[in-house]
Amino acid sequence: MTFSDELRERAEVLAEALPYIQKFYGKVFVIKYGGKAMVDDELKRIVIQDIVLLRYVGIVPIVVHGGGPEITELMQRLGKQPKFVCGLRVTDEETAEIVEMVLAGKINKELVDLLNRFGGMAVGLNGKDANLLRASKIPPEKTGGFDLGFVGEVEEVNPSILHLLSSAGYIPVVSSTSSDEEGNTLNLNADHVAGKIAAALQCTKLIFLTDVSGIYLTPNEPTTLISVLKASEAKELINLGVIDKGMIPKVEACLEALSAGVPQTHIINGAMPHSLLMEIFTDKGIGTMIVAD
Amino acid sequence: MTFSDELRERAEVLAEALPYIQKFYGKVFVIKYGGKAMVDDELKRIVIQDIVLLRYVGIVPIVVHGGGPEITELMQRLGKQPKFVCGLRVTDEETAEIVEMVLAGKINKELVDLLNRFGGMAVGLNGKDANLLRASKIPPEKTGGFDLGFVGEVEEVNPSILHLLSSAGYIPVVSSTSSDEEGNTLNLNADHVAGKIAAALQCTKLIFLTDVSGIYLTPNEPTTLISVLKASEAKELINLGVIDKGMIPKVEACLEALSAGVPQTHIINGAMPHSLLMEIFTDKGIGTMIVAD
Amino acid sequence: MTFSDELRERAEVLAEALPYIQKFYGKVFVIKYGGKAMVDDELKRIVIQDIVLLRYVGIVPIVVHGGGPEITELMQRLGKQPKFVCGLRVTDEETAEIVEMVLAGKINKELVDLLNRFGGMAVGLNGKDANLLRASKIPPEKTGGFDLGFVGEVEEVNPSILHLLSSAGYIPVVSSTSSDEEGNTLNLNADHVAGKIAAALQCTKLIFLTDVSGIYLTPNEPTTLISVLKASEAKELINLGVIDKGMIPKVEACLEALSAGVPQTHIINGAMPHSLLMEIFTDKGIGTMIVAD
Amino acid sequence: MTFSDELRERAEVLAEALPYIQKFYGKVFVIKYGGKAMVDDELKRIVIQDIVLLRYVGIVPIVVHGGGPEITELMQRLGKQPKFVCGLRVTDEETAEIVEMVLAGKINKELVDLLNRFGGMAVGLNGKDANLLRASKIPPEKTGGFDLGFVGEVEEVNPSILHLLSSAGYIPVVSSTSSDEEGNTLNLNADHVAGKIAAALQCTKLIFLTDVSGIYLTPNEPTTLISVLKASEAKELINLGVIDKGMIPKVEACLEALSAGVPQTHIINGAMPHSLLMEIFTDKGIGTMIVAD
Amino acid sequence: MTFSDELRERAEVLAEALPYIQKFYGKVFVIKYGGKAMVDDELKRIVIQDIVLLRYVGIVPIVVHGGGPEITELMQRLGKQPKFVCGLRVTDEETAEIVEMVLAGKINKELVDLLNRFGGMAVGLNGKDANLLRASKIPPEKTGGFDLGFVGEVEEVNPSILHLLSSAGYIPVVSSTSSDEEGNTLNLNADHVAGKIAAALQCTKLIFLTDVSGIYLTPNEPTTLISVLKASEAKELINLGVIDKGMIPKVEACLEALSAGVPQTHIINGAMPHSLLMEIFTDKGIGTMIVAD
Amino acid sequence: MTFSDELRERAEVLAEALPYIQKFYGKVFVIKYGGKAMVDDELKRIVIQDIVLLRYVGIVPIVVHGGGPEITELMQRLGKQPKFVCGLRVTDEETAEIVEMVLAGKINKELVDLLNRFGGMAVGLNGKDANLLRASKIPPEKTGGFDLGFVGEVEEVNPSILHLLSSAGYIPVVSSTSSDEEGNTLNLNADHVAGKIAAALQCTKLIFLTDVSGIYLTPNEPTTLISVLKASEAKELINLGVIDKGMIPKVEACLEALSAGVPQTHIINGAMPHSLLMEIFTDKGIGTMIVAD
Repeated sequence: MTFSDELRERAEVLAEALPYIQKFYGKVFVIKYGGKAMVDDELKRIVIQDIVLLRYVGIVPIVVHGGGPEITELMQRLGKQPKFVCGLRVTDEETAEIVEMVLAGKINKELVDLLNRFGGMAVGLNGKDANLLRASKIPPEKTGGFDLGFVGEVEEVNPSILHLLSSAGYIPVVSSTSSDEEGNTLNLNADHVAGKIAAALQCTKLIFLTDVSGIYLTPNEPTTLISVLKASEAKELINLGVIDKGMIPKVEACLEALSAGVPQTHIINGAMPHSLLMEIFTDKGIGTMIVAD
Repeated sequence: MTFSDELRERAEVLAEALPYIQKFYGKVFVIKYGGKAMVDDELKRIVIQDIVLLRYVGIVPIVVHGGGPEITELMQRLGKQPKFVCGLRVTDEETAEIVEMVLAGKINKELVDLLNRFGGMAVGLNGKDANLLRASKIPPEKTGGFDLGFVGEVEEVNPSILHLLSSAGYIPVVSSTSSDEEGNTLNLNADHVAGKIAAALQCTKLIFLTDVSGIYLTPNEPTTLISVLKASEAKELINLGVIDKGMIPKVEACLEALSAGVPQTHIINGAMPHSLLMEIFTDKGIGTMIVAD
Repeated sequence: MTFSDELRERAEVLAEALPYIQKFYGKVFVIKYGGKAMVDDELKRIVIQDIVLLRYVGIVPIVVHGGGPEITELMQRLGKQPKFVCGLRVTDEETAEIVEMVLAGKINKELVDLLNRFGGMAVGLNGKDANLLRASKIPPEKTGGFDLGFVGEVEEVNPSILHLLSSAGYIPVVSSTSSDEEGNTLNLNADHVAGKIAAALQCTKLIFLTDVSGIYLTPNEPTTLISVLKASEAKELINLGVIDKGMIPKVEACLEALSAGVPQTHIINGAMPHSLLMEIFTDKGIGTMIVAD
Repeated sequence: MTFSDELRERAEVLAEALPYIQKFYGKVFVIKYGGKAMVDDELKRIVIQDIVLLRYVGIVPIVVHGGGPEITELMQRLGKQPKFVCGLRVTDEETAEIVEMVLAGKINKELVDLLNRFGGMAVGLNGKDANLLRASKIPPEKTGGFDLGFVGEVEEVNPSILHLLSSAGYIPVVSSTSSDEEGNTLNLNADHVAGKIAAALQCTKLIFLTDVSGIYLTPNEPTTLISVLKASEAKELINLGVIDKGMIPKVEACLEALSAGVPQTHIINGAMPHSLLMEIFTDKGIGTMIVAD
Repeated sequence: MTFSDELRERAEVLAEALPYIQKFYGKVFVIKYGGKAMVDDELKRIVIQDIVLLRYVGIVPIVVHGGGPEITELMQRLGKQPKFVCGLRVTDEETAEIVEMVLAGKINKELVDLLNRFGGMAVGLNGKDANLLRASKIPPEKTGGFDLGFVGEVEEVNPSILHLLSSAGYIPVVSSTSSDEEGNTLNLNADHVAGKIAAALQCTKLIFLTDVSGIYLTPNEPTTLISVLKASEAKELINLGVIDKGMIPKVEACLEALSAGVPQTHIINGAMPHSLLMEIFTDKGIGTMIVAD
Repeated sequence: MTFSDELRERAEVLAEALPYIQKFYGKVFVIKYGGKAMVDDELKRIVIQDIVLLRYVGIVPIVVHGGGPEITELMQRLGKQPKFVCGLRVTDEETAEIVEMVLAGKINKELVDLLNRFGGMAVGLNGKDANLLRASKIPPEKTGGFDLGFVGEVEEVNPSILHLLSSAGYIPVVSSTSSDEEGNTLNLNADHVAGKIAAALQCTKLIFLTDVSGIYLTPNEPTTLISVLKASEAKELINLGVIDKGMIPKVEACLEALSAGVPQTHIINGAMPHSLLMEIFTDKGIGTMIVAD
């Protein structure tokens, strides 16, 4: 292929992106960023650049991130033994503090810095900033009588700061801790935070970047990937145990967003380079899309 | 190449466009559209889509168009014999009317309609609208004593309507006739109009879509294409006769824009599909770029 | 009368205009401009000045114009024989192109230029600009089985561009062609276009400048001029054949505007100098006013 | 003259006002209103309507008014003997209070009410409102050693409230008292107040409505009316005693405004009905115009 | 107490005001100012400063004032005998003029000047300005058949000018006269004007500064002060004659405001220094608060 | 003292704050918060409330905070030995990460949460957010040849995000880390950050809350407190060694702000309750004020 042929091909690819750019122009996408794509440096760079690109072609991205492995690492260095119940980290007061430090003080700032480095102008937030997320402790009744400690659920989203920042061209990057009425710092599940924010913003797409290609009908069998799933079917698959542990909070967050009127939710493989662009700029998309019934 | 490989490649191409998109975000480009690319339906569709794409990735395009062949055709159907002096059409009162009808009433509206059809929201203008271009007859002294009749040169550009429309998201499409103080309709050279508008807007790029790949050191020898030319060199090439007739008004318009502070002017081949995108979204660009000394 | 008496009389006339100016301050008037007043140079100048005056005393004029005679003339020069069915021009593809050239490329630009010459700052549009008018071919069922060809009816008005231009102080001047979904240029009836735009803008007055003084109870008997007509009465007069051919589309446009909530519609004599001002700045008005039941 | 002829004549008069309306569109006029035109009910009604008309044709009027006779009347009813030095009222503390009551509490509110009654939306102010005028006592040195008491001169104009009100469409009506640093109410000369406000606003015209037709070369000889006077000539006429007592503060106010850049100042006869319109809507104007050298 | 202790105590007082400042931030308070607090110079200074303070801590004050004693004084000096029926001043045409002069031309301007002197930026208005209050004569039927003459009741409040001024940071100061449809100046009861404006603005608090500490259960027995009163109870106390003459218009104004949705109305003692601040910046408040049932 | 006397006294204190509130209305104060006042819970609550109060009385506070002791604590828990050179923490890559976690992830979020709890609506930032602070490593030449590692100095302040947040009513809370061109996280001195931000914003006051009452002429002798110091005198006191280690960066930051045009800088004792209010709301202020020569 000559240089000039290659150039033309590249131009054609750009030209073919036009209908998708038009379709999503000015639309809000909530992107839950986590897993391998947040650990591997090269993948991280690609995701960050893709998010900046979305911003420049007129999409309004809101990023929500987790950070499990780094929390565990710091806990261990500080002599604390991580413990999980129902997929949620048992969190004493000191752990809540560690979670917030790692999320808001390390991962969040690193993402903000990377986004800025690629021209994105990001601002980091957590649930406390501008009262973005009002939370309360999850009552033991909801976790089989087990007291998870300083683990919270979102009671209310105050999205004003997100509107202010994104309408001024900034990309908000949200980490998942906040406080309750008594002023306790609470550890929140980042997937649920993404779902709540998506619901509050009535966004156009909620996208989870995970470590698998989507939901499989037969666990661990990539060939059984489900492309489109209705909300009711997703609930059934949870009941049947087909949707497994790590995936449950993501699917629940999708269901919450769908029931609030978000039209499309997606679970895609962040470990596949440019999966975000592939999802958005093709007709078929990739991964599993969960839609309302 | 598997489907998934192809998808990734496409995503990579998009991702690689990011730096160019950032560089030109919010910048005004004046695009002179003419020649073969305005006659061939497939090429026309491609140019139109490319312009719409520019709009969606944050560039502010202003389109100026010509329409020589269709003017000649209507003149002949109405029994008038076209005649040219110094590359400019000798224009009696009736011809001026024909020129305006063809440009403003046919070509302009067709381009506007096509841009809208591809999602661009265009508005057609000529020099009379909102007093965009104030013109006067070219005095015979400037054309070797020959009276060209109702052929004008731009005296003043009032760009308010361009700012109003483009800041509201519309793509202005300008055709090249206007009137003089006495109310005579004047035929203007579209290349010069593009140069004058580029100068008045202090735009970032002025791009001419022509039928050749740029300026050749040896006429008609594509292998002698000049990539970058300084203004002073361009003037010399005109004096040396290397830059030939049809190219002269384009180069002069570039020189006028450059002297008003426009940083980059380009002559590219509109007959090459997506030449506009290739020029903008690659480091090297294509065609000939003329820059200030 | 001494000079000073004359001066005082003039001042009194101005002073007496105040209540009308107050009444219509900030109100939108859609003015369909056509007939003799658009052919005679002196009448044209007067109408144009009157429209500019309206703008300066706080009224928001939107001008819609026709151009039948000049279309016929160009068709004939190009060897085409005009043909009318139900008062509508049978329009093949080439004729549609001629119609658009004459309307958008000649008459529209001439009006725009005149308005500007008298200080009005006008911008010309047709139905294609900013998707102002979405149209479709009139199905043969509506014209007694006869296929009129490229003649359309307005499906939708997108008035954003009218709001943008008039709130920035420009006078929009609209000519009556547009395109359908397939991209065919369609010839629209200018009276109907005026009615549709009046309805979409919920304007305060829709005024038709015609060649007669209004609607006569006995055709061609000026002494039987009807000053005020209710919508239901107008419909009856159409059924009775009292309202004749050329007047039918105007009255239908009035009825359409009235049913959309426009409070007053007028048919006045454009051939009478300053008829526009006489209609607006007197209690009784002139011509025939059609109001809702 | 038939009704229809009369109608047309009226329309022509309106049409002929267009160039003047265009010329003064959006321009600020400071109008000093006083003398007979403020006493005679019919003249008052006419002046008020004329001012409202100016507002509606796009001029921005600021009204400043006096009220000598009514002040004198109330003083006498309260047993106080008016006394004047250099044309200025000797003002003890009680007199200052009477002046303010009559001006701000009677005449101002009456003018405001009349303007509103004719559709003008006026708001009354005096120098105290929003600190519009900061004043200080005229030192005896300036009045031949005579202490005028609570008579002030304007030190500073804070025009923000005038801008706020007039840009919201209100007509500000200003009466001529204010206070000094110690909080004393001061009686100000209304002519000087008009000149100071004209200067501060850099208005387009300053107009004095007086009881004479302008400045006469031979006092009391209307046939010797001077149409145009240069500032230097006006100063000379003062020195020569040709410009007499009551006229001096008006001419001084004109000179002050001119030296601050106001291009035109006028002294016209408010007792002539519609003199304001005659001045504005004719080429020659009426009365005496004083312009910069 | 050392200087430093005193300083700390002062700081603590400021700090303790925070919750009240937050509670009333951006809220509109209508303050009826009258009685002793408007006569005594020291009390006047304090009230004025308190109002300015409210403005600076984010409250939006609208001041309405009366002026009975000074009206009576001027009437007597002009040889007119004041006469009252049902607590309302019998007002002939000349008296209406006197009332307006004293209120708008003396008291209002004095308050405006004082507010400005303490940094408040006030603008004086009466009911005529910007058509703030449209009024009509009280028909004799409402006053036991007695014709009060030029005494009016408010028919309509046009609060645009209040919004314009207060959103630009000015404090509007309103005196209680206006005109009827025939242009007669009418004397209005300032308490009722305050109630009407409070109702029209849907303000947060309506506060009457009076000469007593509030409503007493046993007249003239300060120990029987009622702290909180429901609207229905207030009506009963009027019927029982417990609420006496001077207090009736104030309580009626409170009831009118309450029925329009104003949540809290207050009658406090303006003769107590800083009673306004005490009412606002303490939990209990002072005086009598009348609330909806 | 009776309850009512106490109430009046409180009201008087509020009233006496008016001139200070007026003086600083709309002005930006940069407050460096640190030391004991950030460790003691009661003092912390008081400072936070004071800052919220400033916001509500119209001052625009920008908070910059440090956090030395908590950084040291976490370092030690993670087995790292803190080391200081020239009063700056020697910072390896891991330490920089710890610093950022503690500052941005713990202290900053705690302050934000407290401010919100008291009604302040705060948003936390560090130098990376919106590129607020561009930094570079301090070259060893500036620290006596000693390589401090990942310790930076501010190269550039981009205050857009501060303007956006504060004009929308939010209180920005800034912690002192950022990154350099290579993407390394750098530990910045919070005092210098405060000075740089004060300079960039051209703020009205820069206030340091420290653990001492100000600058003493004789170290540790509170009776030798200097109330006002000129910049040149401050420099001399540094040279003379009178201004000691911990105070040097604060004084240097003051000097930097002063030389950029900030008119007043203050060093006050945060350990004294309400010292912030005492400084602002008294004529004399407290602590040491450093002003330009």
